[in-house]
Amino acid sequence: MNQLIEALAKTKLFKGLTIGEIEDLFKRSRPVLQKFARDEYVAHATETCDYLMLLLSGEVVTYMEDKEGKILQLEAIKSPDVLASAVLFSTDAVLPVDIVARTDCRILFIRKDKILDYCQRNEKFLKNLLCDMGDRLLFLAKKLHELTFGTLRSRIAKYIVQHAKEDEFILPVSKEELARFFAVPRPSVSRVFMQFEREGILIQNGRKIKILDRSSLEKLSEKLGDDYSYGEL
Amino acid sequence: MNQLIEALAKTKLFKGLTIGEIEDLFKRSRPVLQKFARDEYVAHATETCDYLMLLLSGEVVTYMEDKEGKILQLEAIKSPDVLASAVLFSTDAVLPVDIVARTDCRILFIRKDKILDYCQRNEKFLKNLLCDMGDRLLFLAKKLHELTFGTLRSRIAKYIVQHAKEDEFILPVSKEELARFFAVPRPSVSRVFMQFEREGILIQNGRKIKILDRSSLEKLSEKLGDDYSYGEL
Repeated sequence: MNQLIEALAKTKLFKGLTIGEIEDLFKRSRPVLQKFARDEYVAHATETCDYLMLLLSGEVVTYMEDKEGKILQLEAIKSPDVLASAVLFSTDAVLPVDIVARTDCRILFIRKDKILDYCQRNEKFLKNLLCDMGDRLLFLAKKLHELTFGTLRSRIAKYIVQHAKEDEFILPVSKEELARFFAVPRPSVSRVFMQFEREGILIQNGRKIKILDRSSLEKLSEKLGDDYSYGEL
Repeated sequence: MNQLIEALAKTKLFKGLTIGEIEDLFKRSRPVLQKFARDEYVAHATETCDYLMLLLSGEVVTYMEDKEGKILQLEAIKSPDVLASAVLFSTDAVLPVDIVARTDCRILFIRKDKILDYCQRNEKFLKNLLCDMGDRLLFLAKKLHELTFGTLRSRIAKYIVQHAKEDEFILPVSKEELARFFAVPRPSVSRVFMQFEREGILIQNGRKIKILDRSSLEKLSEKLGDDYSYGEL
């Protein structure tokens, strides 16, 4: 339990709280720990959500899916972090996404009413929760901006610019994951990379990328607006 | 002031609170009232936002805009209602949208720290605020779902199905407003309506629509998923 609390103390939700204060929340709220295996569903979209979920170890991914099975990957979340904080308090408290374990993981469930109670006891916790909810909303607003205004070309350019500290670098994810991230078919991603190669912008070898013309990539990525930046994939 | 408090008592943010409780908040927080003329900017995207805004009279519209001036209309908000509740508490507290007065309107500004303070004093207010923030997040998630998965055809079909209680009805907005709502060029909207006409789905005469084949519209609109519904335009 102590290790667990130390992990949580590092998250945004518990920022500035003492170990004693976190213990106090846990004593009052009696959270339930649950384990999930890799690829297991933690929660399904449209399910009611009555618990705050704290991801203690492992990673999850959130998805949206349409009726025909087309998938948009929204976010990869690494532990320790909080999941679905905003939804919990909405009118219907219904999840807008699937949450799937990307690795084995452990999640702590705390009842909603206990969270409300603790917000009133601890101002720092209240501020942190409101901040986390606000940040989730802005994350979605940026995704919306990107999907409305960005072309796949400019989105991939931006992704490369943000992830390539050196001109030679390894893509942190596969092209299949990139395709899910951008909600496009896998071959469309490959096509953009091949175009970039033909235009002398980069050379690729699997995930290994060598950038030859960074300014073209930067020009393309500027179309998405300065304030857009990709989270962890 | 009394009229004002009665108007606010009807909003989601003050639901369940007594007039006395709302007066208490106002006494503590000393809100500032500001008037805006039609078409005036209430706030610009990327501006820092330190105040909770309560729309007391009139209507505002929220927009996203890209560097080339392409516009996506997100929401039309009628008084009384709260604006930008979630953003206020995010890490950077930066607005993701422009807020523009659609009519003359009056807005009450309450400092952020006063809101935090009141959350700790009044549990109902805390719950209402968290609920409003959660609902805004779900609104964005639905928009994202629609923009990712919907075609313009299915989106317009859904819009018609939801707004046509009778088979003969008047579109509540112009096609230009629809185009902004869907972030597409104006002629694309007209083209969809003309297609529908050619296919014997409806007859149009300006904003006057007569539906001939509702089941086709329903079939198209189902592609967007059951849980998607349009807010006020």
